[in-house]
Amino acid sequence: MSKGKVCLAYSGGLDTSIILAWLLEQGYEVVAFMADVGQEEDFEAARAKALKIGATKVVISDVREQFVKDIIFPAVQVNAVYEDVYLLGTSLARPVIAKAQIDVAEQEGCFAVSHGCTGKGNDQIRFELSFYALKPDVQVIAPWRLPEFFNRFAGRKDLLDYAAEKGIPVAQTKAKPWSTDENMAHISYEAGILEDPNTTPPKDMWKLITDPMDAPNTPQDITLDFEKGIPVKLTYKDNATGKEHVVTDALELALHVSNLGRANGVGRIDIVENRYINLKSRGCYEQALLTILRKAHVDLEGLVLDKEVRQLRDQFVTTTYSKLLYNGSYFTPECEFIRAMIEPSQKTVNGTVRLSLYKGNVIVLGRYSNTESLYDATESSMDELTGFLPTDTTGFIAIQAIRVKKFGEAKKASGEKITL
Amino acid sequence: MSKGKVCLAYSGGLDTSIILAWLLEQGYEVVAFMADVGQEEDFEAARAKALKIGATKVVISDVREQFVKDIIFPAVQVNAVYEDVYLLGTSLARPVIAKAQIDVAEQEGCFAVSHGCTGKGNDQIRFELSFYALKPDVQVIAPWRLPEFFNRFAGRKDLLDYAAEKGIPVAQTKAKPWSTDENMAHISYEAGILEDPNTTPPKDMWKLITDPMDAPNTPQDITLDFEKGIPVKLTYKDNATGKEHVVTDALELALHVSNLGRANGVGRIDIVENRYINLKSRGCYEQALLTILRKAHVDLEGLVLDKEVRQLRDQFVTTTYSKLLYNGSYFTPECEFIRAMIEPSQKTVNGTVRLSLYKGNVIVLGRYSNTESLYDATESSMDELTGFLPTDTTGFIAIQAIRVKKFGEAKKASGEKITL
Amino acid sequence: MSKGKVCLAYSGGLDTSIILAWLLEQGYEVVAFMADVGQEEDFEAARAKALKIGATKVVISDVREQFVKDIIFPAVQVNAVYEDVYLLGTSLARPVIAKAQIDVAEQEGCFAVSHGCTGKGNDQIRFELSFYALKPDVQVIAPWRLPEFFNRFAGRKDLLDYAAEKGIPVAQTKAKPWSTDENMAHISYEAGILEDPNTTPPKDMWKLITDPMDAPNTPQDITLDFEKGIPVKLTYKDNATGKEHVVTDALELALHVSNLGRANGVGRIDIVENRYINLKSRGCYEQALLTILRKAHVDLEGLVLDKEVRQLRDQFVTTTYSKLLYNGSYFTPECEFIRAMIEPSQKTVNGTVRLSLYKGNVIVLGRYSNTESLYDATESSMDELTGFLPTDTTGFIAIQAIRVKKFGEAKKASGEKITL
Amino acid sequence: MSKGKVCLAYSGGLDTSIILAWLLEQGYEVVAFMADVGQEEDFEAARAKALKIGATKVVISDVREQFVKDIIFPAVQVNAVYEDVYLLGTSLARPVIAKAQIDVAEQEGCFAVSHGCTGKGNDQIRFELSFYALKPDVQVIAPWRLPEFFNRFAGRKDLLDYAAEKGIPVAQTKAKPWSTDENMAHISYEAGILEDPNTTPPKDMWKLITDPMDAPNTPQDITLDFEKGIPVKLTYKDNATGKEHVVTDALELALHVSNLGRANGVGRIDIVENRYINLKSRGCYEQALLTILRKAHVDLEGLVLDKEVRQLRDQFVTTTYSKLLYNGSYFTPECEFIRAMIEPSQKTVNGTVRLSLYKGNVIVLGRYSNTESLYDATESSMDELTGFLPTDTTGFIAIQAIRVKKFGEAKKASGEKITL
Repeated sequence: MSKGKVCLAYSGGLDTSIILAWLLEQGYEVVAFMADVGQEEDFEAARAKALKIGATKVVISDVREQFVKDIIFPAVQVNAVYEDVYLLGTSLARPVIAKAQIDVAEQEGCFAVSHGCTGKGNDQIRFELSFYALKPDVQVIAPWRLPEFFNRFAGRKDLLDYAAEKGIPVAQTKAKPWSTDENMAHISYEAGILEDPNTTPPKDMWKLITDPMDAPNTPQDITLDFEKGIPVKLTYKDNATGKEHVVTDALELALHVSNLGRANGVGRIDIVENRYINLKSRGCYEQALLTILRKAHVDLEGLVLDKEVRQLRDQFVTTTYSKLLYNGSYFTPECEFIRAMIEPSQKTVNGTVRLSLYKGNVIVLGRYSNTESLYDATESSMDELTGFLPTDTTGFIAIQAIRVKKFGEAKKASGEKITL
Repeated sequence: MSKGKVCLAYSGGLDTSIILAWLLEQGYEVVAFMADVGQEEDFEAARAKALKIGATKVVISDVREQFVKDIIFPAVQVNAVYEDVYLLGTSLARPVIAKAQIDVAEQEGCFAVSHGCTGKGNDQIRFELSFYALKPDVQVIAPWRLPEFFNRFAGRKDLLDYAAEKGIPVAQTKAKPWSTDENMAHISYEAGILEDPNTTPPKDMWKLITDPMDAPNTPQDITLDFEKGIPVKLTYKDNATGKEHVVTDALELALHVSNLGRANGVGRIDIVENRYINLKSRGCYEQALLTILRKAHVDLEGLVLDKEVRQLRDQFVTTTYSKLLYNGSYFTPECEFIRAMIEPSQKTVNGTVRLSLYKGNVIVLGRYSNTESLYDATESSMDELTGFLPTDTTGFIAIQAIRVKKFGEAKKASGEKITL
Repeated sequence: MSKGKVCLAYSGGLDTSIILAWLLEQGYEVVAFMADVGQEEDFEAARAKALKIGATKVVISDVREQFVKDIIFPAVQVNAVYEDVYLLGTSLARPVIAKAQIDVAEQEGCFAVSHGCTGKGNDQIRFELSFYALKPDVQVIAPWRLPEFFNRFAGRKDLLDYAAEKGIPVAQTKAKPWSTDENMAHISYEAGILEDPNTTPPKDMWKLITDPMDAPNTPQDITLDFEKGIPVKLTYKDNATGKEHVVTDALELALHVSNLGRANGVGRIDIVENRYINLKSRGCYEQALLTILRKAHVDLEGLVLDKEVRQLRDQFVTTTYSKLLYNGSYFTPECEFIRAMIEPSQKTVNGTVRLSLYKGNVIVLGRYSNTESLYDATESSMDELTGFLPTDTTGFIAIQAIRVKKFGEAKKASGEKITL
Repeated sequence: MSKGKVCLAYSGGLDTSIILAWLLEQGYEVVAFMADVGQEEDFEAARAKALKIGATKVVISDVREQFVKDIIFPAVQVNAVYEDVYLLGTSLARPVIAKAQIDVAEQEGCFAVSHGCTGKGNDQIRFELSFYALKPDVQVIAPWRLPEFFNRFAGRKDLLDYAAEKGIPVAQTKAKPWSTDENMAHISYEAGILEDPNTTPPKDMWKLITDPMDAPNTPQDITLDFEKGIPVKLTYKDNATGKEHVVTDALELALHVSNLGRANGVGRIDIVENRYINLKSRGCYEQALLTILRKAHVDLEGLVLDKEVRQLRDQFVTTTYSKLLYNGSYFTPECEFIRAMIEPSQKTVNGTVRLSLYKGNVIVLGRYSNTESLYDATESSMDELTGFLPTDTTGFIAIQAIRVKKFGEAKKASGEKITL
C-alpha cells in the first residue's frame, strides 16, 4: 500500500537519485519531475535512470519560453540586480520550475512534493514558498532537513554505499570540487574549493563563457530593439560566419544574445553574497545574457525614461523586486504588488541600442528612439537658448538657495565652520 | 573707482578670459582663481594670461589631496553612483573647488564670485549652492545667465571679436567639437558632435584611458587593502617595469590606481543622463580610478559587511548621497545628515581585495579579512552541519509560509489562478 | 483689438477682481472661471460682479463629485498625509480645479490662463504645473509675479484705490486678519496674525468645525463600509434627530461624514509646514472628512491588508504620493507612475469599520470583513496551537540569531561593550 | 547535582511560577529576575513567592530611568510609530529588560536564561534576539516552545493542578479575559475576548487612562521644552491643585506627562497589527506619555527642522527604526546603524511647544524657538517681498515645467487624454 504519490524534482544526479530510492523505501510512489530551463543536460538518460530506480513516471517540462518571456524579460525591464553585482540567474529560474512542478503534482495526483536542496541554501526557500503559494495544502518532503535522512547520509560514502545497495548507477567521472546550477541565463559555481573566498577559481571551472583572454580580437557589434522595455529584435552580423541575423522570437533572441556574450567573454562574476538565511556564501556566476540585456536596457532608459520615474523605480521597485526574487518570494502578495509597477514604468522605453561585445566588455556605441522625444538635442545644447531662458535657472537656483543660505547662516551664527 | 573685488573661477580658456575682460570693463577688480584637482593643465601659462588681461592677482590652489581624502574616498565608502553608471567624477570635484574659491574670495576681500558655467548645465548649480552655503552673503555673477552678457556674446564669433579687441590671446589649435572637464578621477566629454546620442564617439576623443583594444595583452594584478572602507594600501608589481610597488599615501595611491586603470582600458562610459534642471544630456566619461576603487570596495563589503546594514545603506544612503552630489547639494543640511551615515556603515569594512585589470575588465581574484569574521566558510558549507540545525530552516520557512499560504488560499477562494 | 482671450480663475474677492480689471486694461478679453469644490460661496453674486467688471463670460464648474471620486477617495486609499499631520486638503483640490479651468480655456478659445496666487505660495506651482501638463502650449499670466503688477499694487491701499477707480465693489466687512482657502474636505487659515507661530488661533477663527469643548456630550457612532479601499457605505443614526441614515452615493457620503465630523469637533490642526519653495509657513486647517475616512481606512487595513504590502506601500507610495500632491505634481509622469500603485495595493481592503465621534476624538469601536481572512483569531490565539508548531518559531529565531550572535561575538572580540 | 543556574524572567504570575517550579524539577538552580519598568506591581510579594517556590535568589532591577533616557526619549526624537498608530510601548521596554536580565545572568553565573513568553508572540523574539547579541553563548530555555512543557501544560487546568501539587499560591481573583503588559509608557491588552476584532473593549478594561467621556471639562495646558529633540522641561499649572510645576529630571518629567495625559483621556488606541511572525493580532493600548511627547516633538520639528532632513528622516529612519524596534532587533548591526542617524537629525530641534490636553485631544497652542531661525515670518509672509524676488519663482516653475510640458506633449502626440 503506497503512502501516496510524491512529485520529486529530479536531476539525474547522485543526490536526487538517492532521494528517489529513499522515498520509495519509505513507501511513497514517486513521479520524477524535470524542468528544461535551458541547461545542458541529457534529459533522456535521466528519464531512463529514474524509471530504472523505480519512479512511476517521469515528466519533463520545457519551460524555456515561459522562463524568457515571463521572468527574464521582466527582470530586464526592472534592471534587477542583487547586491550590486548578481543578476539573479538561479533565483529567476525558481518560480518557473516550481510552477511547473506543482502543475505536474496536481495533474498526477501527488499530495506531496520533494526536492534535493540542502538545508543551508536559498533554493529550498525559493521552492517551498512557491509550492505553498501555488498549492497551500501541499506537503513538502525536504530530506536534507529530516534527521532520519541527514543522519543516515552523513557523508558521500553513505550515499555511494546506498547507491550500490539499490543498484543506482553512479557516474564514473570524478565529482568536481564545487556545485553548479545551470539555466539558459546563467550557471553558478559554489561550495567545495570555492568556500575559501580568497581562492581564485581555476581557469577550467568556467564552463559557458570564454575567458576574456581567449575571446576574439575583433569586437562583435549587435543592435537591440526594445518595446516597452522588452527586447523585441536582435540584429547582428556574425563576425565568425559573416552571416546577418535578425532575430525577433523571444526564446531565439535570448539564445543568440547569450551565445554572443559567452563567445566574447561577457558576464563572469565572483562574489561573496548574503543568503536569505543570514549566512554569507561565495558564488561564481556566468551571466552573459542578463549582463548584455540589462546594460542595453539601462542605457536606453537614459534616453527615454522620465528622470523622476526612473529615480523612484530605481530606489523602490528595482531594489525590492530584486530582493524578493533572491529571497524566493515571487509568489507573494508583496511581489505581486511590486510586479504591478513594472509595466507602468516602461511605457516610454522604446528604442534601439547599439553595442559592441569585446573580451568581456559591453560597450555602448549609440542609441536612438523613433517614438520618444524626452531627449532633445537642441534644448540640451549649451549653444542654444531654445526652450527656456537662462534667467529661469537663476530663479531655480534662488529658490534652492533659500534653505542653503539659512544653513550657512546658522553655521556662522553658531561659530561652526563648514568643512568638506 | 572699482565696484569691488570679484573672485573669478578662471580656466585660461576663451570663455573665462572673455569674462575676465568683461568684468574689468564693468568696473570690477578681479582676482583670478584656479584649482588644481589633478587635471592636465599649464597653470603658469594661465596665470600669465590672466595677469596680462588685467587680473589683480591669480591664486592657484592645489586641492588634490583634499579631493582624494575628503571627497573621493568617502564616495568609494558609500559606493556612489548616479543612474546606475556614472561615478560622479565632475560632481565630486565641485565642492572642493567651491570651498577653495570661497576661501580665496574671503582672503582677498571679494564681495562676489564669478564663473563661466552655462545656464543649462549642472555645474552652475553645484558651484552656486556651495557658494551660498559657505558664504551666505556672497554675490554671484554668472555672466552666461545675464542678458547683457549672453545677448552680447551670442556666438563664438562675438567672443573672438571681443578677444581681438581686448588683446586676449586665442589658442591657434582648432577647438574640439566637444567640451571637456577634467580632474584626477575623471574626464568628461559632452556637447558638440556628442549631442546626437547615436553618434559613436571618435576613437581619438578619448584622452586618458587606453582603448581596451590597444591595452596590454597581459593582465595587471593589483592588491588593495581597506580600513573602515578607505583604501589604505596598494600593492602591485608593474607588468611593464617589473618593479614592485607598495603605496600608502592617499594621493599617491589614487594616482597609481588611476594610471594602472587608464593603461589597462578600464573605466570608459557613454550615457544619456538626467541633469538636475530636468534636461537630458549625453556624456562620455573616463573614470578609471573610481571604477577600480568602487568595484574593490563593493566586493569587500560582500565579505565583511552585515547584510541588513548593506541593504539599508544601499537603498537609502548610496542612492541619496549620489543624487545630492550630482545635484550640487554637498553643503546642505540633508547632505550633512546623510554623510553622517557613512562612517557608521564602514566599521567592519576591513580587508584586502585582489584584482586583475585586463583590457577594460576589472576581475576579482579573491578577497580576505584578517579582522572580520562574518563570513564563516565552515558554517556556510553545504557539507557541514555546524552552527545551526537544518530543522531550524524548517521553522524559518514555516513562519514565512504563514502569509504565503494565506495568499494562495485567498487566490483559490476567489477563483483567481496564480500565474507567473 | 483684443490681445486674445484669457481664462482667469476668479473668486469674487478683491484680488482677482483687481486682476480681472487689470487684464482688461492690458487689452485682453477675459473669461472668468469658478470651480465649485464644495466651498461656501455666493457663486451668483460673484458671477454678477465679474460681468459687471467686464468679463466676457463667467463659467462655473461643479466638480464636487469628481473631486470626491477621483481625488479624495484615492487619497484615502493611500492614507495620504504630509509631514505627519496635514491631510492635504488644499492640495487635493488643485488638480480638479486646474483641469476644469483648462477645459474651459479650451472650450472658450483662450490662449492663456491667469490666477491670483501670490509668488511665495504652493498654489501657483500646483496650478501652473497642472496647466502646463494639460495644455503644454498655454500661456500663464501670474500677475503677482509680474513686476509691472506687483510694483503697482504694493499694498492694500493701492488695490482699494484701483477698485474705486474702476468701480469695483468692495465688501464693507472688515477683512479677516488671515487668509483662507475652502473646499468640501477642508478649510485653511494662514498669513496675517497667524504668522507668529506662537500665537494661538482665536476661537472665532475656526469656521467649519465645532470646538471640541462645545461639541455634543454624546458620542456619535457611525459605520463605514469599504470596497477595495473606497468608502462605499455610511450607516448611522443621527443623535440629534434620531434618524437612521444609509448613504452610498459618493458625494453624499462625503458630505455626511464631513458634517458629522464637523459637528463633533473632529479634524482641527495647527502646524508649521515646509512649502515646496523652501519656505516654512504656519497653517491652521479644518479637515474633518479626511480625518475620519483616513482613520477608518488605516484601521481596516490592519485587518485585511498583507503586512509586507502595507510596509512597502507606507514607505514608498504613501510618502511619495503625498509629497507629489503637496508639490502640485499631480499631472506628472512620476505621479501617474505612483498612482498606478494604489489600486494593486487595495484589492483586499474590503470590510467594515465602526467608529465613534466624540469631542474631537475618532474612536475605533470594531472592524470586520466578510470576504477577507488574513486575520485568523484562532491562529493568532495564544491559547491555540493551530496553524504552526511552537517549535517552528524556534527555527525562525535561530535563523535570525545567526547574524545577531556574530554581532555580539564581534563586539566581544573587539572589547566593545554593547549598551543601550 | 544542579544542571546549572538559569536566570528566569519572573513576573509573580501563574505562568512564570509554574515555569520556576518546572525548571527546579528539571534539576536547574533558578535565579528569578524582575525588571521595574514602571509597571504597577507588588515586587516584594513576588520576591517572597519566588523564594517560597524555590528560587535561589531574586533580583529586582529598577531600570526606569534608563528606560526613559536611553529608549523612550530617542523614540520621541525619531517619532517612532508602527503601522501608523502604535507607539511601540511594549517593544520599547524589551531591550532594557533583556539587558538587565543578561547583566544579572552574568553576575550570578547563569549559563541560561528563561522566560514565559508564548510561541506565537513578538516578545519571545524581542527577548531572545537581545539575549543572543548581549551574550552569544547563552542558552535560552523557552518552555512554551518545548514539547515536553507545552504538551504537559495544555490547558489552564494543568497549570492549576501543578500549582496545587507544588504548593504554589494562586491568586483568588478571577483571571481577566485578556492579557496585559505594562510599563510606565504604556499598557497593552490582547487575547481572550479581544480576539474578535469587532468586539468593542469593555469600558472597565481600560486601566490607566481615564475615559475621554469622564475626563475633566477643563483643558489642562502644559509647556514642553526640547533640546536636540529631547524633552528637557515640563511646565504646567495643575488644574486640580492650582500648583505650578517645573519638572526637568527625565524620569520625573516622563511620570508627570504620563499622569497628565492619563487624567485627560489621552492615548487610547485599538488596532489590528501585523506581528513579526506573520500573524495578525488585535491589541488595545494605552499610551499617554508617548502620544503627548511625540505630538509635541513632531510639531516642534515643523518649526525648526530642515525640510529635506525631515523628509529623509521620516521616510527611512523613522520607518526603519520603528520596524526594527517592533521586531525585537534593537541589538543588531542594522539598528546600531540606524540609531546613529538620530542624533545628526536633531541638532536644530530646540524650542518650546505649548499644548492643551482635553478629553483625549492633544491640541497645539503654539510653539517657538529662541535659538533656531529656519522659520522666518517676514520671509514667508504673503505681504512681503523680502528674501527673494517673485520672479525667482517664475524661473523655479519654468525649470520644473520642462519635464511636465514634455509629458503633456507626449500624451497629446499619442492621442492619450490626460484625466484625473
